[in-house]
Amino acid sequence: GKDVKRFKPGDHVGVGCMVDSCQKCSACEEGHEQYCAEIATFTYNHVDRHDKMPTYGGYSEKIVVSDKFVLKVPDGLDLKGAAPLLCAGITTWSPLRHWKAGKGSKVAVIGLGGLGHMALKLANALGADVTLFTRSAGKEQDARRLGAHNVVLSTNKGQMASVQGRFDLIIDTVPYVHDLNHYLPTLTINGTLVLLGYVGDLESMLSTVPLVMGRRSVAGSVIGGIAETQEMLDFCGKHGITSDVEVIKIQDINKAYERMLKSDVKYRFVIDMASLKAT
Amino acid sequence: GKDVKRFKPGDHVGVGCMVDSCQKCSACEEGHEQYCAEIATFTYNHVDRHDKMPTYGGYSEKIVVSDKFVLKVPDGLDLKGAAPLLCAGITTWSPLRHWKAGKGSKVAVIGLGGLGHMALKLANALGADVTLFTRSAGKEQDARRLGAHNVVLSTNKGQMASVQGRFDLIIDTVPYVHDLNHYLPTLTINGTLVLLGYVGDLESMLSTVPLVMGRRSVAGSVIGGIAETQEMLDFCGKHGITSDVEVIKIQDINKAYERMLKSDVKYRFVIDMASLKAT
Repeated sequence: GKDVKRFKPGDHVGVGCMVDSCQKCSACEEGHEQYCAEIATFTYNHVDRHDKMPTYGGYSEKIVVSDKFVLKVPDGLDLKGAAPLLCAGITTWSPLRHWKAGKGSKVAVIGLGGLGHMALKLANALGADVTLFTRSAGKEQDARRLGAHNVVLSTNKGQMASVQGRFDLIIDTVPYVHDLNHYLPTLTINGTLVLLGYVGDLESMLSTVPLVMGRRSVAGSVIGGIAETQEMLDFCGKHGITSDVEVIKIQDINKAYERMLKSDVKYRFVIDMASLKAT
Repeated sequence: GKDVKRFKPGDHVGVGCMVDSCQKCSACEEGHEQYCAEIATFTYNHVDRHDKMPTYGGYSEKIVVSDKFVLKVPDGLDLKGAAPLLCAGITTWSPLRHWKAGKGSKVAVIGLGGLGHMALKLANALGADVTLFTRSAGKEQDARRLGAHNVVLSTNKGQMASVQGRFDLIIDTVPYVHDLNHYLPTLTINGTLVLLGYVGDLESMLSTVPLVMGRRSVAGSVIGGIAETQEMLDFCGKHGITSDVEVIKIQDINKAYERMLKSDVKYRFVIDMASLKAT
């Protein structure tokens, strides 16, 4: 509307995973709208807090959103590759910044998918020494291209033993149940493993030994706040970072869904919404 | 020996849980000898790294120890009550300091035993708002005397619901397997639950939901470094804090052990080693 001063027609803008929040709890006031005490209004699969209508996210042709929740996409960034920055980008950026990844720190990333490939790019650009943990031997070349300095096969005992006590921060992007006990001893004293992908009960039992004997932490994190999303976009603009995407037509969505289930995507599908008009 | 400059005959000194460490790894250099990469030499049930003799801890009549691992006990502190500061005191002090408990912060303590009663005293003296989680209704009066401002029965759903999202730091002193899932939602956004008492596999499965949806952490911690042990003793000297102890004769050790198994001790047994001469 005409009251919006921060943007003008023709600007490249983006909307992330949230369109609104209570904007008055302490989390919101600190810029952590993703942890809103009244739960943020998510862009998809949620109910708008004003008109009680469902939110359809990236399948929408049009969206109405408070300008506070609109992000400016820096000039020069490819828009197709920038779109996933608003989800996979901020989800990995927020913990990298919160736990202070940067020059002199050693960061490991578990899993090379939509989140993992962004974590490699961002951690590398922040100046950290970056390692990928993967179960798939074939991912080494891609991992190095995306920013990993080292690749560790998590199924190889010798390789796992060689990185005991090494990482200040582990970014765990695995979206299904998995055992953390293999990874915790690879943290330094005071190190943190942060879960981004899995929301549910962990298996196996978590052993407290590496936590107690090394003041290590297991933490979680979800997307990021609006201010830090803009910070991430500006950083990506400066460093020329986008997501590796495959652009698909809306008509191919079922095929893409099946390929996603087989982990056959490098590394994010982006739907060209212009294709909707062809139906 | 005569090369010791920091102490003179007649000083009141103490030795904690460690008598030595490698003193050259990064943990030792940072004053975190408890996390020594080569594992510290513990005062009890360990093997001395020089003469390869076993260490007998508090059952020793004499002890030989590098002056670096000797602590000065402040004048005016009752020695019987000061003895457990070197274990229960530092074990609770270290995480309170590391996670910055103090004025304006809300700290909860799980369990009122040897560690728990020290956590209440120290957190209170540091200026925090202090809550005890307990399963025993009868502990309220003692908890308040020891420094708790609030007591929450962890078996009472209504009481637990009333403290959701409240605590910046939870000091978990429970020494047996227990379920953390009840406690994690009582942490604030960015809050940490730190395990001090239980070393092993946690039950039940840890749910990642409160971690991911609130950037909360589960961490561990063991005793504390030498420098922070001295800091804790000096703080206790200034605030007149000691452990609540029952002094026993060495001849009563088996009876004390049985009472300890029944949690029938308030809150630490201290052995009067002079009684050893009577055998």
